[in-house]
Amino acid sequence: MARYVVDVMPKPEILDPQGKAVHGALPRLGFAGVQDVRQGKRFEIELEGEASDELLAEVQRMAETLLSNPVIEDFAVHVEGDGVGGKHTA
Amino acid sequence: MARYVVDVMPKPEILDPQGKAVHGALPRLGFAGVQDVRQGKRFEIELEGEASDELLAEVQRMAETLLSNPVIEDFAVHVEGDGVGGKHTA
Repeated sequence: MARYVVDVMPKPEILDPQGKAVHGALPRLGFAGVQDVRQGKRFEIELEGEASDELLAEVQRMAETLLSNPVIEDFAVHVEGDGVGGKHTA
Repeated sequence: MARYVVDVMPKPEILDPQGKAVHGALPRLGFAGVQDVRQGKRFEIELEGEASDELLAEVQRMAETLLSNPVIEDFAVHVEGDGVGGKHTA
């Protein structure tokens, strides 16, 4: 069994109201020095079979077609426990 | 400037309706062999100063108090671009 992670984040030029809300709340809770907060989504996907380049490409297609909105979001795919992987900035 | 990542995921024993919806949609889009999908949140937090153990502990406190609900969610904190870091399972 292979477990992949898809990280989906709002593009830098896109407003991020959830991140802004967290950014505004942190100083009120006593946390100083926060310069920016962005909030996105994380998917953990378990697939049959061993981790391979084919499965990674399959997960990349899932991220493109279902998990992210390429107009406003970037995504990155990697095997869980493995820092590297394909980063995708449309 | 230090950038930290907080990953917040539903605990394994907690139902995850968003993940279930994705899991149900993938076969309809032609993706086979998907065994499980979990959906959580990812926060990217920029702090003043260099990355340090003190800042990591500070981000861990943010995750505990504001970014996650420890009753139903686990979180993991790490410096961006760095795979390792504190994983927290309450």
